[in-house]
Amino acid sequence: MNLEERVLKSESIYNGAIISVERELVELPDKQTAHREIVHHADAVGILAITNDNKIILEKQWREPVRKPTIEIPAGKLDRRDGNFVDAVKRELNEEIRYEANNVERITGFYSSVGFSDEYMELYLATDLHPVGQELPRDKGEFLEIQEKTLEEAMAMVDSGEIEDAKTIMAIWYWQLKTIK
Amino acid sequence: MNLEERVLKSESIYNGAIISVERELVELPDKQTAHREIVHHADAVGILAITNDNKIILEKQWREPVRKPTIEIPAGKLDRRDGNFVDAVKRELNEEIRYEANNVERITGFYSSVGFSDEYMELYLATDLHPVGQELPRDKGEFLEIQEKTLEEAMAMVDSGEIEDAKTIMAIWYWQLKTIK
Repeated sequence: MNLEERVLKSESIYNGAIISVERELVELPDKQTAHREIVHHADAVGILAITNDNKIILEKQWREPVRKPTIEIPAGKLDRRDGNFVDAVKRELNEEIRYEANNVERITGFYSSVGFSDEYMELYLATDLHPVGQELPRDKGEFLEIQEKTLEEAMAMVDSGEIEDAKTIMAIWYWQLKTIK
Repeated sequence: MNLEERVLKSESIYNGAIISVERELVELPDKQTAHREIVHHADAVGILAITNDNKIILEKQWREPVRKPTIEIPAGKLDRRDGNFVDAVKRELNEEIRYEANNVERITGFYSSVGFSDEYMELYLATDLHPVGQELPRDKGEFLEIQEKTLEEAMAMVDSGEIEDAKTIMAIWYWQLKTIK
């Protein structure tokens, strides 16, 4: 079955600091046309960072899109300083939780919300942590409260709805799978 | 620690069919200011639908934001016909995979990408499936290829990168956890 949509026209709606928005007119497989709205966003990393006493490191931070604080794993966009995803993992570990990891492993990669956005995130496991020698400056406007939780505590926070961030729930379920197997 | 950001000014950038975009000027906890870009999107459901012979139902469809087909669990936005999330689950099961479920259970709820969007999705388990009596019309421009996969096949598709959709990886890991426990 041919599923491809052919772009007939593309219009730039907005070019912002974090996102850009585009509106396309596409030809569908049945030759009808439709509009598609697309939010472009940088690639990103999320990090399941496990301390040497087997706790997950979480951050509480204000998220303006939902007008409340959320509890999440360390994460961040790739930026011009990063050569690749692993560089971004190391930078975010330093900037956000002030750790270096002797072990960094890729878990998986995914589109966050492929219906309207191209944001692609890779999820990493970081273990064998030690405090950084030299702290990198945090992004302007980044205020974080760091928490460390056991697997049982983290699972309870997902069940209660205290954690309601997709990448964080993924990381906790992966950790649980890894622990059970 | 006070994390709240106070909105000083808000500007509407775009009002589309699927998304709307807003740009805010906020006051940070340290009284500095920053801009926030926010993509508003309807709430949505994702469905881990398991057949009576224990296979997950997946859909292959073109996703214009990433210019390729992706493999995903059935999902969809809540619309004006839906009173609640469970109504949306039943409608999407009918429209997309032509099944009714005798058992529908909420698994969890999450923000897809809380850094820039307010999209909130609830993930449901649907089991005890039987073919629908009356088929609802699909959305215009919705072309789907349906697949059924065992847990082992689905896990291999995540590992190989053939599946790279966040909600779908979550659903498969949840299914694996439920099977192991």
